[in-house]
Amino acid sequence: MAEYTFYTNPMSRAQIARWALHEAGAEYEQVLVDWTNKPAGLLAANPMGKVPTIVHHALDGDRVITECAAICAYLAEEHPGAELAPHELERADYFRWMFFAAGPLEQAITARSMGFEPKDARAEGMAGFGSYARTIKTLESLFVDGRDWVCGERFTMADVYVGSHVDWGLTFGTIPPSVDFVAYAERIQARNAYKAAKAIDNALIEDMKK
Amino acid sequence: MAEYTFYTNPMSRAQIARWALHEAGAEYEQVLVDWTNKPAGLLAANPMGKVPTIVHHALDGDRVITECAAICAYLAEEHPGAELAPHELERADYFRWMFFAAGPLEQAITARSMGFEPKDARAEGMAGFGSYARTIKTLESLFVDGRDWVCGERFTMADVYVGSHVDWGLTFGTIPPSVDFVAYAERIQARNAYKAAKAIDNALIEDMKK
Repeated sequence: MAEYTFYTNPMSRAQIARWALHEAGAEYEQVLVDWTNKPAGLLAANPMGKVPTIVHHALDGDRVITECAAICAYLAEEHPGAELAPHELERADYFRWMFFAAGPLEQAITARSMGFEPKDARAEGMAGFGSYARTIKTLESLFVDGRDWVCGERFTMADVYVGSHVDWGLTFGTIPPSVDFVAYAERIQARNAYKAAKAIDNALIEDMKK
Repeated sequence: MAEYTFYTNPMSRAQIARWALHEAGAEYEQVLVDWTNKPAGLLAANPMGKVPTIVHHALDGDRVITECAAICAYLAEEHPGAELAPHELERADYFRWMFFAAGPLEQAITARSMGFEPKDARAEGMAGFGSYARTIKTLESLFVDGRDWVCGERFTMADVYVGSHVDWGLTFGTIPPSVDFVAYAERIQARNAYKAAKAIDNALIEDMKK
């Protein structure tokens, strides 16, 4: 049995988790999930029935991890040889931007895509992310010191998660194509693990069209 | 100078960060933030101008951490003596539920409070959290094996963050008062650090009313 079971659908955020598995060098077996007929193993592991969900077959038993960002953070710690977890000096940026992307950024983009945005200052306070414009401005501030990656000069697992948001956002037009975002996405796309994961998902998507 | 500068407003999610600071045993100096006149130090650290924001005055320079969950995760790692970071066997649960609360749970509750909810399966897929009902059901599944805390038998920093969502949710009626949620909130409220932090915020709120 492979080390991990990976519940996925190529046309979903699960692409992020596949990239993370490849960066970590983890061995996995994929289970393709059809939205209309979810596998019992997935529903037992995650009542949300959401992909991605991974099950780590560890020596002491199975461990379920759901949520893209959690899968990234978990794999980074579990595969120290891949050097994707933060060093002490990188931890502040690592956690800050992982949770920023998982919370306010995800929420601001979703709310906007679905035609829902806070209408006044009070609603902005309630919503947590405030406004789409302020959220994007904050994301842009990540690059003001000229850094290449979330934690500075070194690629970490935070770039898999935050970078995917930027890469997808540029593709779907939910993030503006500023010079810094475009250059960051190009660095992301140049990663070997990104290319390997993307090739698998693109091939699966082609198969689904047949 | 204290180890941390803590930008806060007692009537906000910043209460979670104060509790985390107390659990970690961190020395901090608080800066109260008035919504209409935000301190320059806060805006320089965090363009979102959001509280909580903490600045860690480390030997190598200042480190800014924003996002409640990130502040919790950072403090847990930075103060190993407090035993709040996950051990290896706890990591899957720790990351899974931290990101679950920061992402889908926060988003489902916000969307519902603001009168916005996905109307069909397609919209549920886009929204990421799916539906409020399924999100709450998933949160309830945390306790099906009779565990007391997010990672099992031991209190960790994940309980500060996830526990605050349950505690607040019960107070504001945004989470249903199931037996498991109520019992968990009672365990949370019995923590000394919770009581100490709450006493400070409650006193500040009383002062603001004068």
